[in-house]
Amino acid sequence: MKIPSPSIPRISLYYRALLSLKDKGIISSQELSEATGCSAAQVRKDLTYFGQFGRPGSGYNVEILKTELKNILGIGRDWDVALIGVGNMGSALLAYKGFRGQGFNIKYVFDNDKKKIGRLRQGIKVRSIQELKKAISPQRINLAIVAVPQDAAQDVIDKLVLSGIKAILNLAPIRPKTPKDIEVLNIDLSMELERLTYFLQRSRE
Amino acid sequence: MKIPSPSIPRISLYYRALLSLKDKGIISSQELSEATGCSAAQVRKDLTYFGQFGRPGSGYNVEILKTELKNILGIGRDWDVALIGVGNMGSALLAYKGFRGQGFNIKYVFDNDKKKIGRLRQGIKVRSIQELKKAISPQRINLAIVAVPQDAAQDVIDKLVLSGIKAILNLAPIRPKTPKDIEVLNIDLSMELERLTYFLQRSRE
Repeated sequence: MKIPSPSIPRISLYYRALLSLKDKGIISSQELSEATGCSAAQVRKDLTYFGQFGRPGSGYNVEILKTELKNILGIGRDWDVALIGVGNMGSALLAYKGFRGQGFNIKYVFDNDKKKIGRLRQGIKVRSIQELKKAISPQRINLAIVAVPQDAAQDVIDKLVLSGIKAILNLAPIRPKTPKDIEVLNIDLSMELERLTYFLQRSRE
Repeated sequence: MKIPSPSIPRISLYYRALLSLKDKGIISSQELSEATGCSAAQVRKDLTYFGQFGRPGSGYNVEILKTELKNILGIGRDWDVALIGVGNMGSALLAYKGFRGQGFNIKYVFDNDKKKIGRLRQGIKVRSIQELKKAISPQRINLAIVAVPQDAAQDVIDKLVLSGIKAILNLAPIRPKTPKDIEVLNIDLSMELERLTYFLQRSRE
């Protein structure tokens, strides 16, 4: 079943709303609506994509819904991750414990800086990017995080695709070219921040 | 002039495309289109919001356009920042040098953990959140970054609003309630990552 991709962040919102509930057995779409800011009609529509969690008029069983949403979002299990690039951004991610909370275990770290290769970062040996294809096999690594500079990003992503990686989190400020069966999530923190600096600039004028 | 907010990330893309150009005096909307993946018509439309940078058919002067876009985006200057919360996420941001490259100077750091208050983090003294209103004046601090747990976020944001802060980068997984004249940018890294785990989960089924 094809689920429209804008539903996924809403599913995340519903899941978080359920997590913050205590001692509540049943929740209505109206209550989920109030907790998340999505309309009740939207809540009902989104949840029907994933099967029948509740009956009309009787609300949803909180525990069952929580488990179902967790499974849908793929956060009930661990994912093995390779991190490419341990500059400023990569180092910050490696130190960020929230990744582990999300089930992401960084197992491999790569860089092309000779001063970093062979050393330990957060207990993980830094390998040369030349070893990428040899070290990564799709059976063992589910996801790659690309935190290399703009100029190097497309080349690294090409190498990852050749290594059989199917999901990439790209933090470099490019929109990489990849085959259709590769899932790429681009997060460009600098560009996000420019929304703010744009506002700050405008409000000063 | 009211600029539609979806234009801002595209303006960021155009600016990055111009930065990567070397020895090029003039660029056409077609070339900017190819470099960014936006249509040439979209490029022309976006740039006219900000005034007349080029003449039809003759392209844009790269240096002038670069300076103009930089000024529009507010990245040609420094912004003083207060960071609230030095847990995992806050610490990662404090260590992230990319913020400084963006013109963001973290001047104040706040937390409510007694073990952290009074100590230095990256050379900045951690203050109690109780001191927030006293320490922050809108003349000196342009932007606040909220990196506190979900339960504490709305309260911290209320305090920031009372302190006169007009722009907030919120990294806690809530959609905070704020007055209309406050600009809030919500970035929820966990929710972004759930787009990926969702994909990974589905591709395993």
